[in-house]
Amino acid sequence: MRRRSFLTAAATAGTLSCLNQRSVFAAEKPKLEKGAVILFQGDSITDAGRNKKEPVANEGLGRGYPDHVAKLLHDAHPELDLQIHNRGISGNKVPDLDRRWQKDCIDVQPDILSILIGVNDIWHMLNGRYDGTAETYRDGFTALLDRTRKALPSVTLVVCEPFVLMSGTVKQNKDKWFPEFTNRRQYAKQVAVQAGAIWVPFQTMFDDAVAAGTNPSDLAGDGVHPTQKGHALMAKTWREVVGV
Amino acid sequence: MRRRSFLTAAATAGTLSCLNQRSVFAAEKPKLEKGAVILFQGDSITDAGRNKKEPVANEGLGRGYPDHVAKLLHDAHPELDLQIHNRGISGNKVPDLDRRWQKDCIDVQPDILSILIGVNDIWHMLNGRYDGTAETYRDGFTALLDRTRKALPSVTLVVCEPFVLMSGTVKQNKDKWFPEFTNRRQYAKQVAVQAGAIWVPFQTMFDDAVAAGTNPSDLAGDGVHPTQKGHALMAKTWREVVGV
Repeated sequence: MRRRSFLTAAATAGTLSCLNQRSVFAAEKPKLEKGAVILFQGDSITDAGRNKKEPVANEGLGRGYPDHVAKLLHDAHPELDLQIHNRGISGNKVPDLDRRWQKDCIDVQPDILSILIGVNDIWHMLNGRYDGTAETYRDGFTALLDRTRKALPSVTLVVCEPFVLMSGTVKQNKDKWFPEFTNRRQYAKQVAVQAGAIWVPFQTMFDDAVAAGTNPSDLAGDGVHPTQKGHALMAKTWREVVGV
Repeated sequence: MRRRSFLTAAATAGTLSCLNQRSVFAAEKPKLEKGAVILFQGDSITDAGRNKKEPVANEGLGRGYPDHVAKLLHDAHPELDLQIHNRGISGNKVPDLDRRWQKDCIDVQPDILSILIGVNDIWHMLNGRYDGTAETYRDGFTALLDRTRKALPSVTLVVCEPFVLMSGTVKQNKDKWFPEFTNRRQYAKQVAVQAGAIWVPFQTMFDDAVAAGTNPSDLAGDGVHPTQKGHALMAKTWREVVGV
Protein backbone atom coordinates (compact mmCIF):
# COMPACT_ATOMS: atom_id res chain seq x y z
CA MET A 1 0.00 0.00 0.00
CA ARG A 2 3.04 2.22 0.39
CA ARG A 3 4.31 2.72 -3.14
CA ARG A 4 2.84 4.16 -6.27
CA SER A 5 3.55 2.23 -9.39
CA PHE A 6 5.96 3.68 -11.88
CA LEU A 7 3.14 3.04 -14.30
CA THR A 8 1.64 6.24 -12.95
CA ALA A 9 4.31 8.25 -14.70
CA ALA A 10 3.55 6.46 -17.94
CA ALA A 11 -0.14 7.21 -17.55
CA THR A 12 0.33 10.89 -16.73
CA ALA A 13 2.54 11.23 -19.79
CA GLY A 14 -0.50 10.19 -21.83
CA THR A 15 -2.92 12.48 -23.56
CA LEU A 16 -6.54 13.27 -22.87
CA SER A 17 -7.61 10.79 -25.52
CA CYS A 18 -5.73 8.10 -23.64
CA LEU A 19 -7.71 9.08 -20.55
CA ASN A 20 -10.86 7.89 -22.20
CA GLN A 21 -9.66 4.31 -22.28
CA ARG A 22 -11.13 2.19 -19.54
CA SER A 23 -7.89 0.33 -19.08
CA VAL A 24 -5.98 3.21 -17.50
CA PHE A 25 -5.73 2.06 -13.88
CA ALA A 26 -2.25 3.27 -13.25
CA ALA A 27 -2.13 3.27 -9.48
CA GLU A 28 -0.94 0.22 -7.60
CA LYS A 29 -3.56 -1.89 -5.87
CA PRO A 30 -3.47 -1.54 -2.09
CA LYS A 31 -2.77 -4.49 0.18
CA LEU A 32 -5.01 -4.40 3.21
CA GLU A 33 -3.15 -4.76 6.48
CA LYS A 34 -4.62 -5.38 9.92
CA GLY A 35 -6.34 -2.26 11.25
CA ALA A 36 -6.13 -0.46 7.88
CA VAL A 37 -8.08 2.81 7.79
CA ILE A 38 -10.39 3.45 4.83
CA LEU A 39 -12.01 6.86 4.48
CA PHE A 40 -14.86 7.82 2.15
CA GLN A 41 -15.19 11.51 1.33
CA GLY A 42 -17.66 13.41 -0.77
CA ASP A 43 -21.12 14.95 -0.92
CA SER A 44 -24.66 13.69 -0.34
CA ILE A 45 -24.10 10.56 -2.45
CA THR A 46 -21.39 9.52 0.01
CA ASP A 47 -23.08 11.01 3.11
CA ALA A 48 -26.36 9.12 2.53
CA GLY A 49 -27.64 9.78 6.04
CA ARG A 50 -24.47 8.86 7.93
CA ASN A 51 -24.02 9.77 11.61
CA LYS A 52 -22.56 13.29 11.48
CA LYS A 53 -22.85 14.03 15.22
CA GLU A 54 -20.29 11.55 16.49
CA PRO A 55 -18.66 9.87 13.51
CA VAL A 56 -16.74 6.72 14.40
CA ALA A 57 -15.33 3.86 12.35
CA ASN A 58 -17.68 1.08 11.20
CA GLU A 59 -20.84 2.59 12.77
CA GLY A 60 -23.51 4.89 11.35
CA LEU A 61 -22.00 4.86 7.86
CA GLY A 62 -25.33 5.76 6.23
CA ARG A 63 -27.24 3.79 3.63
CA GLY A 64 -24.97 4.46 0.66
CA TYR A 65 -22.07 2.79 -1.11
CA PRO A 66 -19.60 3.35 1.78
CA ASP A 67 -21.76 1.21 4.06
CA HIS A 68 -22.18 -1.40 1.33
CA VAL A 69 -18.41 -1.53 0.83
CA ALA A 70 -17.85 -1.71 4.59
CA LYS A 71 -20.14 -4.71 5.00
CA LEU A 72 -18.56 -6.49 2.03
CA LEU A 73 -15.02 -5.87 3.32
CA HIS A 74 -15.81 -6.89 6.90
CA ASP A 75 -17.35 -10.07 5.52
CA ALA A 76 -14.37 -10.80 3.28
CA HIS A 77 -11.71 -9.90 5.87
CA PRO A 78 -13.16 -10.34 9.37
CA GLU A 79 -9.68 -10.92 10.81
CA LEU A 80 -8.34 -7.52 9.67
CA ASP A 81 -10.45 -5.28 11.95
CA LEU A 82 -10.66 -2.68 9.20
CA GLN A 83 -11.48 0.85 10.35
CA ILE A 84 -13.91 2.26 7.81
CA HIS A 85 -15.02 5.89 8.03
CA ASN A 86 -17.56 7.97 6.14
CA ARG A 87 -17.11 11.75 6.27
CA GLY A 88 -19.20 12.76 3.27
CA ILE A 89 -21.40 15.84 3.77
CA SER A 90 -24.48 16.59 1.73
CA GLY A 91 -24.14 19.60 -0.60
CA ASN A 92 -20.34 19.67 -0.56
CA LYS A 93 -18.23 20.90 -3.46
CA VAL A 94 -14.42 20.85 -3.79
CA PRO A 95 -13.92 24.10 -1.78
CA ASP A 96 -16.08 22.67 1.04
CA LEU A 97 -13.85 19.62 1.24
CA ASP A 98 -10.81 21.88 1.29
CA ARG A 99 -12.13 23.85 4.27
CA ARG A 100 -12.61 20.76 6.45
CA TRP A 101 -9.77 18.64 5.06
CA GLN A 102 -7.42 18.78 8.05
CA LYS A 103 -10.06 17.57 10.52
CA ASP A 104 -12.07 15.29 8.23
CA CYS A 105 -9.25 13.73 6.22
CA ILE A 106 -5.66 14.36 7.32
CA ASP A 107 -6.42 13.78 11.01
CA VAL A 108 -8.19 10.49 10.19
CA GLN A 109 -4.86 9.23 8.73
CA PRO A 110 -6.40 6.99 6.09
CA ASP A 111 -4.48 4.21 4.37
CA ILE A 112 -7.04 4.34 1.56
CA LEU A 113 -8.85 7.60 0.78
CA SER A 114 -11.79 7.52 -1.62
CA ILE A 115 -13.23 10.79 -2.96
CA LEU A 116 -16.41 11.31 -4.96
CA ILE A 117 -16.99 15.01 -5.61
CA GLY A 118 -18.21 17.16 -8.46
CA VAL A 119 -21.96 16.98 -9.00
CA ASN A 120 -22.68 19.96 -6.71
CA ASP A 121 -19.87 21.95 -8.36
CA ILE A 122 -22.09 22.04 -11.44
CA TRP A 123 -25.56 21.67 -9.86
CA HIS A 124 -25.08 24.70 -7.57
CA MET A 125 -23.78 26.68 -10.54
CA LEU A 126 -26.86 25.75 -12.59
CA ASN A 127 -29.20 26.98 -9.84
CA GLY A 128 -27.22 30.17 -9.28
CA ARG A 129 -25.71 29.34 -5.88
CA TYR A 130 -22.10 29.03 -7.04
CA ASP A 131 -19.97 30.62 -9.75
CA GLY A 132 -17.17 28.03 -10.12
CA THR A 133 -16.31 26.96 -13.67
CA ALA A 134 -15.13 23.57 -14.89
CA GLU A 135 -11.57 24.89 -14.57
CA THR A 136 -12.25 26.00 -10.99
CA TYR A 137 -13.22 22.42 -10.29
CA ARG A 138 -10.12 21.01 -12.01
CA ASP A 139 -7.69 23.36 -10.26
CA GLY A 140 -9.31 23.07 -6.84
CA PHE A 141 -9.41 19.28 -7.05
CA THR A 142 -5.76 19.17 -8.18
CA ALA A 143 -4.71 21.36 -5.25
CA LEU A 144 -6.70 19.21 -2.81
CA LEU A 145 -4.95 16.03 -3.98
CA ASP A 146 -1.53 17.74 -3.90
CA ARG A 147 -2.18 18.81 -0.33
CA THR A 148 -3.28 15.27 0.52
CA ARG A 149 -0.15 13.70 -0.99
CA LYS A 150 2.08 16.04 1.00
CA ALA A 151 0.29 15.34 4.28
CA LEU A 152 -0.23 11.62 3.68
CA PRO A 153 2.60 10.49 1.41
CA SER A 154 1.77 6.79 1.62
CA VAL A 155 -2.00 7.01 1.19
CA THR A 156 -3.70 5.04 -1.59
CA LEU A 157 -5.83 7.62 -3.41
CA VAL A 158 -9.08 6.55 -5.02
CA VAL A 159 -10.96 9.06 -7.16
CA CYS A 160 -14.52 8.13 -8.14
CA GLU A 161 -15.98 9.38 -11.39
CA PRO A 162 -18.83 11.87 -10.91
CA PHE A 163 -21.94 10.57 -12.63
CA VAL A 164 -25.51 11.39 -13.54
CA LEU A 165 -28.34 9.22 -14.80
CA MET A 166 -30.77 10.34 -17.50
CA SER A 167 -33.74 10.62 -15.14
CA GLY A 168 -35.35 13.13 -12.79
CA THR A 169 -33.91 16.64 -12.73
CA VAL A 170 -31.00 15.72 -15.00
CA LYS A 171 -33.32 14.46 -17.73
CA GLN A 172 -35.59 17.50 -17.34
CA ASN A 173 -32.67 19.91 -17.63
CA LYS A 174 -30.31 17.98 -19.87
CA ASP A 175 -29.55 20.94 -22.12
CA LYS A 176 -28.12 22.76 -19.10
CA TRP A 177 -26.25 19.76 -17.69
CA PHE A 178 -24.48 18.88 -20.94
CA PRO A 179 -21.77 19.28 -22.14
CA GLU A 180 -20.87 21.04 -18.87
CA PHE A 181 -21.06 17.81 -16.88
CA THR A 182 -18.98 15.86 -19.40
CA ASN A 183 -16.23 18.48 -19.20
CA ARG A 184 -16.00 18.15 -15.42
CA ARG A 185 -16.07 14.39 -15.59
CA GLN A 186 -13.11 14.43 -17.97
CA TYR A 187 -11.27 16.87 -15.73
CA ALA A 188 -11.89 14.56 -12.76
CA LYS A 189 -10.18 11.73 -14.61
CA GLN A 190 -7.29 13.96 -15.64
CA VAL A 191 -6.82 15.10 -12.04
CA ALA A 192 -7.02 11.51 -10.78
CA VAL A 193 -4.45 10.15 -13.20
CA GLN A 194 -2.05 13.02 -12.57
CA ALA A 195 -2.27 12.33 -8.83
CA GLY A 196 -1.59 8.61 -9.35
CA ALA A 197 -5.03 7.76 -8.02
CA ILE A 198 -7.08 4.65 -8.71
CA TRP A 199 -9.97 5.72 -10.96
CA VAL A 200 -13.41 4.19 -10.34
CA PRO A 201 -15.48 4.65 -13.53
CA PHE A 202 -18.96 5.07 -12.06
CA GLN A 203 -20.37 6.87 -15.12
CA THR A 204 -19.20 4.05 -17.39
CA MET A 205 -20.64 1.52 -14.95
CA PHE A 206 -24.06 3.22 -14.89
CA ASP A 207 -24.03 3.70 -18.67
CA ASP A 208 -23.30 -0.01 -19.09
CA ALA A 209 -26.16 -0.93 -16.73
CA VAL A 210 -28.58 1.25 -18.71
CA ALA A 211 -27.31 -0.15 -22.00
CA ALA A 212 -27.99 -3.63 -20.61
CA GLY A 213 -31.62 -2.68 -20.03
CA THR A 214 -31.85 -1.23 -16.51
CA ASN A 215 -34.18 1.76 -16.21
CA PRO A 216 -32.12 4.87 -15.24
CA SER A 217 -34.65 5.80 -12.55
CA ASP A 218 -34.15 2.37 -10.93
CA LEU A 219 -30.53 3.41 -10.41
CA ALA A 220 -31.07 7.06 -9.40
CA GLY A 221 -34.60 8.44 -9.20
CA ASP A 222 -33.62 12.10 -9.51
CA GLY A 223 -30.68 11.41 -11.80
CA VAL A 224 -28.17 12.26 -9.06
CA HIS A 225 -28.83 10.25 -5.88
CA PRO A 226 -28.58 6.47 -6.31
CA THR A 227 -31.22 4.03 -5.14
CA GLN A 228 -30.16 1.04 -3.05
CA LYS A 229 -29.70 -0.85 -6.31
CA GLY A 230 -27.43 1.94 -7.55
CA HIS A 231 -25.41 2.03 -4.34
CA ALA A 232 -25.01 -1.76 -4.39
CA LEU A 233 -23.67 -1.58 -7.93
CA MET A 234 -21.26 1.21 -6.97
CA ALA A 235 -19.94 -0.83 -4.04
CA LYS A 236 -19.38 -3.87 -6.24
CA THR A 237 -17.49 -1.82 -8.82
CA TRP A 238 -15.51 0.08 -6.18
CA ARG A 239 -14.25 -3.18 -4.67
CA GLU A 240 -13.39 -4.69 -8.01
CA VAL A 241 -11.48 -1.64 -9.24
CA VAL A 242 -9.70 -0.89 -5.96
CA GLY A 243 -8.91 -4.59 -5.70
CA VAL A 244 -9.68 -5.23 -2.04
CA MET B 1 -36.60 -24.08 -2.71
CA ARG B 2 -39.86 -26.01 -2.89
CA ARG B 3 -39.15 -29.37 -1.29
CA ARG B 4 -37.96 -30.44 2.09
CA SER B 5 -35.38 -33.16 2.11
CA PHE B 6 -36.38 -36.60 3.27
CA LEU B 7 -33.34 -36.24 5.52
CA THR B 8 -35.61 -34.15 7.73
CA ALA B 9 -37.50 -37.25 8.72
CA ALA B 10 -34.26 -38.97 9.62
CA ALA B 11 -33.20 -36.04 11.74
CA THR B 12 -36.50 -35.74 13.59
CA ALA B 13 -36.32 -39.46 14.35
CA GLY B 14 -33.10 -38.73 16.25
CA THR B 15 -32.76 -38.09 19.97
CA LEU B 16 -31.91 -34.92 21.86
CA SER B 17 -28.29 -36.04 22.10
CA CYS B 18 -28.20 -36.14 18.31
CA LEU B 19 -29.43 -32.54 18.29
CA ASN B 20 -26.18 -31.44 19.86
CA GLN B 21 -24.18 -32.49 16.83
CA ARG B 22 -23.21 -29.59 14.63
CA SER B 23 -23.71 -31.63 11.52
CA VAL B 24 -27.49 -31.82 11.72
CA PHE B 25 -28.52 -29.53 8.87
CA ALA B 26 -31.45 -31.56 7.73
CA ALA B 27 -33.31 -29.05 5.58
CA GLU B 28 -32.59 -28.69 1.90
CA LYS B 29 -30.65 -25.60 0.79
CA PRO B 30 -32.80 -23.06 -1.04
CA LYS B 31 -32.13 -22.05 -4.61
CA LEU B 32 -32.58 -18.33 -5.07
CA GLU B 33 -34.82 -17.41 -7.96
CA LYS B 34 -35.35 -13.98 -9.49
CA GLY B 35 -37.40 -11.77 -7.19
CA ALA B 36 -37.16 -14.22 -4.28
CA VAL B 37 -38.53 -12.82 -1.01
CA ILE B 38 -36.42 -13.19 2.13
CA LEU B 39 -37.94 -12.20 5.47
CA PHE B 40 -36.09 -11.73 8.77
CA GLN B 41 -38.20 -12.00 11.91
CA GLY B 42 -37.34 -11.63 15.56
CA ASP B 43 -36.69 -9.23 18.41
CA SER B 44 -34.34 -6.28 18.97
CA ILE B 45 -31.31 -8.20 17.66
CA THR B 46 -33.09 -8.47 14.29
CA ASP B 47 -34.86 -5.08 14.51
CA ALA B 48 -31.60 -3.14 15.11
CA GLY B 49 -33.19 0.21 14.34
CA ARG B 50 -34.98 -0.77 11.14
CA ASN B 51 -37.67 1.44 9.61
CA LYS B 52 -40.86 0.37 11.38
CA LYS B 53 -43.09 3.18 10.05
CA GLU B 54 -43.18 2.17 6.42
CA PRO B 55 -41.29 -1.10 6.04
CA VAL B 56 -40.38 -1.94 2.45
CA ALA B 57 -38.00 -4.40 0.85
CA ASN B 58 -34.28 -3.56 0.69
CA GLU B 59 -34.58 -0.18 2.45
CA GLY B 60 -34.25 0.80 6.09
CA LEU B 61 -33.27 -2.69 7.19
CA GLY B 62 -31.50 -1.41 10.30
CA ARG B 63 -27.87 -1.84 11.28
CA GLY B 64 -28.02 -5.53 12.20
CA TYR B 65 -27.34 -8.88 10.58
CA PRO B 66 -30.38 -8.65 8.20
CA ASP B 67 -28.88 -5.55 6.58
CA HIS B 68 -25.45 -7.18 6.44
CA VAL B 69 -26.96 -10.26 4.76
CA ALA B 70 -28.94 -8.06 2.36
CA LYS B 71 -25.84 -6.18 1.20
CA LEU B 72 -23.89 -9.40 0.76
CA LEU B 73 -26.68 -11.05 -1.23
CA HIS B 74 -27.33 -8.02 -3.44
CA ASP B 75 -23.61 -7.92 -4.16
CA ALA B 76 -23.43 -11.63 -4.94
CA HIS B 77 -26.64 -11.75 -7.00
CA PRO B 78 -27.35 -8.29 -8.45
CA GLU B 79 -29.33 -9.82 -11.31
CA LEU B 80 -31.86 -11.52 -9.01
CA ASP B 81 -33.57 -8.39 -7.64
CA LEU B 82 -34.00 -10.08 -4.28
CA GLN B 83 -36.72 -8.63 -2.06
CA ILE B 84 -35.31 -8.60 1.46
CA HIS B 85 -37.51 -7.58 4.40
CA ASN B 86 -36.85 -7.02 8.08
CA ARG B 87 -39.85 -7.18 10.41
CA GLY B 88 -38.08 -7.73 13.73
CA ILE B 89 -39.50 -5.75 16.67
CA SER B 90 -37.55 -4.92 19.78
CA GLY B 91 -38.73 -6.73 22.91
CA ASN B 92 -40.65 -9.45 21.08
CA LYS B 93 -41.17 -12.94 22.45
CA VAL B 94 -42.82 -15.92 20.72
CA PRO B 95 -46.40 -14.83 21.66
CA ASP B 96 -45.70 -11.34 20.23
CA LEU B 97 -44.67 -12.88 16.90
CA ASP B 98 -47.81 -15.02 16.96
CA ARG B 99 -50.06 -11.95 17.39
CA ARG B 100 -48.64 -10.17 14.33
CA TRP B 101 -47.81 -13.23 12.21
CA GLN B 102 -50.53 -12.85 9.57
CA LYS B 103 -49.57 -9.26 8.73
CA ASP B 104 -45.84 -9.42 9.35
CA CYS B 105 -45.07 -12.86 7.93
CA ILE B 106 -47.83 -14.69 6.04
CA ASP B 107 -48.85 -11.60 4.06
CA VAL B 108 -45.21 -10.95 3.07
CA GLN B 109 -45.21 -14.39 1.34
CA PRO B 110 -41.54 -15.13 1.94
CA ASP B 111 -39.62 -17.76 0.01
CA ILE B 112 -37.09 -17.85 2.84
CA LEU B 113 -38.19 -17.02 6.40
CA SER B 114 -35.51 -16.57 9.05
CA ILE B 115 -36.54 -16.39 12.73
CA LEU B 116 -34.37 -15.48 15.72
CA ILE B 117 -36.46 -15.45 18.90
CA GLY B 118 -36.00 -16.50 22.50
CA VAL B 119 -33.79 -14.18 24.51
CA ASN B 120 -36.71 -12.02 25.71
CA ASP B 121 -38.71 -15.13 26.57
CA ILE B 122 -36.20 -15.67 29.36
CA TRP B 123 -35.04 -12.08 29.97
CA HIS B 124 -38.56 -10.79 30.62
CA MET B 125 -39.16 -13.74 32.95
CA LEU B 126 -35.99 -12.96 34.91
CA ASN B 127 -37.08 -9.36 35.43
CA GLY B 128 -40.63 -10.34 36.41
CA ARG B 129 -42.45 -9.08 33.27
CA TYR B 130 -43.40 -12.52 31.89
CA ASP B 131 -44.25 -15.90 33.36
CA GLY B 132 -43.55 -18.19 30.39
CA THR B 133 -41.47 -21.29 31.11
CA ALA B 134 -38.99 -23.04 28.81
CA GLU B 135 -41.84 -25.37 27.83
CA THR B 136 -44.08 -22.39 27.02
CA TYR B 137 -41.35 -21.26 24.64
CA ARG B 138 -41.00 -24.69 23.06
CA ASP B 139 -44.73 -25.21 22.57
CA GLY B 140 -45.43 -21.68 21.34
CA PHE B 141 -42.53 -21.82 18.89
CA THR B 142 -43.66 -25.23 17.61
CA ALA B 143 -47.20 -23.93 17.05
CA LEU B 144 -45.88 -20.85 15.25
CA LEU B 145 -43.85 -22.97 12.83
CA ASP B 146 -46.78 -25.36 12.28
CA ARG B 147 -48.99 -22.39 11.44
CA THR B 148 -46.32 -21.09 9.09
CA ARG B 149 -45.97 -24.41 7.26
CA LYS B 150 -49.72 -24.61 6.74
CA ALA B 151 -49.95 -21.06 5.39
CA LEU B 152 -46.71 -21.17 3.39
CA PRO B 153 -46.17 -24.81 2.41
CA SER B 154 -43.19 -24.11 0.16
CA VAL B 155 -41.29 -21.69 2.41
CA THR B 156 -37.69 -22.42 3.35
CA LEU B 157 -37.63 -22.10 7.13
CA VAL B 158 -34.47 -20.88 8.85
CA VAL B 159 -34.32 -20.95 12.65
CA CYS B 160 -31.45 -19.10 14.28
CA GLU B 161 -30.05 -20.26 17.58
CA PRO B 162 -30.71 -17.82 20.44
CA PHE B 163 -27.40 -16.81 22.00
CA VAL B 164 -25.81 -14.85 24.79
CA LEU B 165 -22.24 -13.71 25.36
CA MET B 166 -20.56 -13.80 28.76
CA SER B 167 -20.44 -10.03 29.16
CA GLY B 168 -22.63 -7.19 30.45
CA THR B 169 -25.89 -8.12 32.14
CA VAL B 170 -25.54 -11.81 31.27
CA LYS B 171 -22.16 -12.06 33.00
CA GLN B 172 -23.44 -10.09 36.00
CA ASN B 173 -26.46 -12.37 36.39
CA LYS B 174 -25.12 -15.63 35.07
CA ASP B 175 -26.53 -17.70 37.96
CA LYS B 176 -30.02 -16.60 36.90
CA TRP B 177 -29.46 -17.03 33.15
CA PHE B 178 -28.10 -20.57 33.39
CA PRO B 179 -29.12 -23.34 32.99
CA GLU B 180 -32.44 -21.68 32.01
CA PHE B 181 -30.98 -20.25 28.80
CA THR B 182 -29.33 -23.52 27.79
CA ASN B 183 -32.68 -25.32 28.13
CA ARG B 184 -34.39 -22.88 25.79
CA ARG B 185 -31.56 -23.02 23.33
CA GLN B 186 -31.87 -26.80 23.16
CA TYR B 187 -35.64 -26.51 22.74
CA ALA B 188 -35.11 -24.07 19.86
CA LYS B 189 -32.98 -26.62 18.06
CA GLN B 190 -35.51 -29.39 18.74
CA VAL B 191 -38.32 -27.21 17.37
CA ALA B 192 -36.24 -26.27 14.32
CA VAL B 193 -35.33 -29.83 13.41
CA GLN B 194 -38.89 -31.07 13.88
CA ALA B 195 -40.10 -28.34 11.52
CA GLY B 196 -37.50 -29.25 8.89
CA ALA B 197 -35.85 -25.87 9.29
CA ILE B 198 -32.28 -24.91 8.51
CA TRP B 199 -30.55 -24.35 11.87
CA VAL B 200 -28.06 -21.48 12.17
CA PRO B 201 -25.84 -22.18 15.19
CA PHE B 202 -25.14 -18.64 16.42
CA GLN B 203 -24.27 -19.72 19.98
CA THR B 204 -21.70 -22.18 18.66
CA MET B 205 -20.35 -19.51 16.34
CA PHE B 206 -19.94 -16.97 19.16
CA ASP B 207 -18.47 -19.59 21.49
CA ASP B 208 -15.93 -20.48 18.80
CA ALA B 209 -15.01 -16.81 18.31
CA VAL B 210 -14.46 -16.38 22.04
CA ALA B 211 -12.44 -19.60 22.21
CA ALA B 212 -10.27 -18.20 19.40
CA GLY B 213 -9.46 -15.15 21.52
CA THR B 214 -12.14 -12.54 20.77
CA ASN B 215 -13.32 -10.60 23.84
CA PRO B 216 -17.04 -11.36 24.45
CA SER B 217 -17.78 -7.65 24.92
CA ASP B 218 -16.35 -6.96 21.45
CA LEU B 219 -19.12 -9.19 20.09
CA ALA B 220 -21.99 -8.03 22.35
CA GLY B 221 -21.37 -5.31 24.93
CA ASP B 222 -24.34 -6.19 27.16
CA GLY B 223 -24.15 -9.90 26.43
CA VAL B 224 -27.34 -9.81 24.34
CA HIS B 225 -27.10 -7.17 21.57
CA PRO B 226 -24.29 -7.71 19.06
CA THR B 227 -21.80 -5.04 18.06
CA GLN B 228 -21.19 -4.41 14.35
CA LYS B 229 -18.45 -7.02 14.56
CA GLY B 230 -20.96 -9.47 16.03
CA HIS B 231 -23.60 -8.71 13.39
CA ALA B 232 -21.02 -9.10 10.60
CA LEU B 233 -20.05 -12.53 11.96
CA MET B 234 -23.72 -13.54 12.18
CA ALA B 235 -24.34 -12.51 8.57
CA LYS B 236 -21.32 -14.48 7.37
CA THR B 237 -22.47 -17.60 9.22
CA TRP B 238 -26.11 -17.18 8.17
CA ARG B 239 -25.10 -17.10 4.49
CA GLU B 240 -22.78 -20.07 4.80
CA VAL B 241 -25.32 -22.21 6.62
CA VAL B 242 -28.34 -21.23 4.52
CA GLY B 243 -26.17 -21.69 1.45
CA VAL B 244 -27.11 -18.61 -0.56
